[in-house]
Amino acid sequence: MNIIDGGVTVAKGFKASGIAANIKRPGRRDMALVYSEVPAICAGTFTTNKVKAAPVKRDINIIENTESVQAVVINTGYANACTGEQGDKDNELMAEYVAKELGISSDAVLTCSTGIIGMHLPMEPVKNGAVLLKKELSDTLEAGSNAAEAIMTTDTVSKEIAVTLTLSGKKVVIGGMSKGSGMIHPNMATMLGVITTDAAISKTMLNKAIKADIKDSFNMISVDRDTSTNDSLIIFANGQAENPVITDANDDYKAFCKALSVVTQSLAKMMAGDGEGASKLIEVCVKGAASKPQAVGLSKSVISSNLVKAAIFGSDANWGRILCAMGYSGEDFNPDTVDVFINSDAGQQQLAKDGMAAAFSEELAKKILSAKEVNITINLHLGDDMATAWGCDLTYDYVKINGDYRS
Amino acid sequence: MNIIDGGVTVAKGFKASGIAANIKRPGRRDMALVYSEVPAICAGTFTTNKVKAAPVKRDINIIENTESVQAVVINTGYANACTGEQGDKDNELMAEYVAKELGISSDAVLTCSTGIIGMHLPMEPVKNGAVLLKKELSDTLEAGSNAAEAIMTTDTVSKEIAVTLTLSGKKVVIGGMSKGSGMIHPNMATMLGVITTDAAISKTMLNKAIKADIKDSFNMISVDRDTSTNDSLIIFANGQAENPVITDANDDYKAFCKALSVVTQSLAKMMAGDGEGASKLIEVCVKGAASKPQAVGLSKSVISSNLVKAAIFGSDANWGRILCAMGYSGEDFNPDTVDVFINSDAGQQQLAKDGMAAAFSEELAKKILSAKEVNITINLHLGDDMATAWGCDLTYDYVKINGDYRS
Repeated sequence: MNIIDGGVTVAKGFKASGIAANIKRPGRRDMALVYSEVPAICAGTFTTNKVKAAPVKRDINIIENTESVQAVVINTGYANACTGEQGDKDNELMAEYVAKELGISSDAVLTCSTGIIGMHLPMEPVKNGAVLLKKELSDTLEAGSNAAEAIMTTDTVSKEIAVTLTLSGKKVVIGGMSKGSGMIHPNMATMLGVITTDAAISKTMLNKAIKADIKDSFNMISVDRDTSTNDSLIIFANGQAENPVITDANDDYKAFCKALSVVTQSLAKMMAGDGEGASKLIEVCVKGAASKPQAVGLSKSVISSNLVKAAIFGSDANWGRILCAMGYSGEDFNPDTVDVFINSDAGQQQLAKDGMAAAFSEELAKKILSAKEVNITINLHLGDDMATAWGCDLTYDYVKINGDYRS
Repeated sequence: MNIIDGGVTVAKGFKASGIAANIKRPGRRDMALVYSEVPAICAGTFTTNKVKAAPVKRDINIIENTESVQAVVINTGYANACTGEQGDKDNELMAEYVAKELGISSDAVLTCSTGIIGMHLPMEPVKNGAVLLKKELSDTLEAGSNAAEAIMTTDTVSKEIAVTLTLSGKKVVIGGMSKGSGMIHPNMATMLGVITTDAAISKTMLNKAIKADIKDSFNMISVDRDTSTNDSLIIFANGQAENPVITDANDDYKAFCKALSVVTQSLAKMMAGDGEGASKLIEVCVKGAASKPQAVGLSKSVISSNLVKAAIFGSDANWGRILCAMGYSGEDFNPDTVDVFINSDAGQQQLAKDGMAAAFSEELAKKILSAKEVNITINLHLGDDMATAWGCDLTYDYVKINGDYRS
């Protein structure tokens, strides 16, 4: 398996476009389209928030009831959430505009929206946008990048990745793009993600692969513990690689899952490191756990703690806050066997041993924590299970961005 | 029932002191003592964090196994949490120093600590502090205020309140003090609270009263969702008011509980409004709920949302974030019947009706949200239950304070 350049347009038979439809901020790319030349198997995972945006409700329904789809259209600026029946109509219309341009059924077009909650989508720009999206549709790397750029909201960088692998002698590609920085929390986030692959795989196995995968990728990142109304991750598999169709958990399936995890974890880490106002990527590894759920619960609790995040922002080796966040996680563990380490480009150091302060250099700790990527490793000494979670520091800029988002 | 001046020294037979023991920052009051001249019935509630500080473990044990106690000594600077056996010994020694000065058994002296986790308590200042605490012990209002000042950490103002009431013709006083601003979250917080009353009440009924009370007071505030290792609320009742001893849920008990709720809710609101870096007190009332737990769950979810808190900081009427925070609360409700209102000194306005945007003036909304105290009222239109939660906005100063707390 190799990481290669590009995103959603690298896999065979996929095209994309990203254009400025002037939905909210003129001149900025704000609509994206991803299209498969042939009908594609599709699976998805969506927000667990009780308040679901119109596109989320529609996509869930289509994916459950349709064998294959061909496209997804995405707009930024407005979330089309808390918009009532009008919101549902606008959303359906967005799919219809695009379906008409592509010459396919509107049921073959999924939709995603992200932006402000509670305001109606302006449909004139969306209608004109659909025409432009079709016009710009292309299988070039640039087209994929334009789509990745068009789905950004408060993101500071666009996020794409692609990998190649060989399945039973056939070259297969998996590519993806995502956006998300604020409102990101375990169990999805204001994140949108689209993954395209030319692998041949059954709907059942594709669904199984993505559901298992997100437990170790998108569900392990946290920016601010707020889970959004619009979170969506959609994966298309169009079979153009012509590998033997994956219909059970054989070696090809395992290789596919492994490559998929590189795509999703890379995107997840990019999102965590680009959290709103973030100055650092934080990685929390819990090792020596008695069970996987325990490791997950503890790592998520630490990565979600405002106090830990603010301490890392200040490069302050305040390990007591790490123990404290573990303590209120709801997980059972023995505080007296916990070791805590920090690592970065600048070095490695143990902060706590057996739940108490280890002798450590404050100076070196400050250097380690001043790096752009900081790892916190916690060893529970209870068993062999582990989990890794990603997040970012809590900064002045987070407050600034979120104090006046609507303006 | 009347609110009167003072705090822990107003009830008959109680004395207090607050002195500078030079535990961490020279010249600043950092040790407090509250003392009852006669043995007092005692009840308490403590952190649910799995990692419990040495004083918390000791207090829980004493309160469970002893009918009455006479004093509580409190230090700031060091939390005496994650300090192992040495921490337990230091904590026991702190109680012994004070017991010796007071001429009582060390089992009659409770302890509380707050400050940095994981560092050992310097015992020489604590030993000298015990002597000074005894020397300064007094029943004046000033002595009570000194104690309230001595328990402050990142608090910007000290917090005290006292009320009088009449039980079966006898004048009874309930007074209290508390500290807490960071690490405050539903289910207690880095909060310490001491309440003194001269009411005569059985241990069973006192315990019942405080356990019921905190559900609507200290457990309904949130500053940053981090629940600490040291949270403690202790209530002493010494019977000096000579009212008929309360031994069941009679009218006196009900009047006592009502007055107690004024003390605890006042302290809780003071703490929420003095959250680290806070510029505003936020009150979230959920009305029309199908059940009390539903109202509690939804109000806590909204008050705990970083995105809601940052929006209020920016005086931004971003009601979609309120709906969103309700949506991920885990509570079942109908988003399509939700109304959202904001209120303050500057006016009142409806932001959402039936889960969608109401027609509202952005200008007036900005004015309302610019007040020092902002109320958000949410009507679910499902039933008659309600709950109120308190918190504060998320500001640059929160990040600043917590980015470098240990220095």
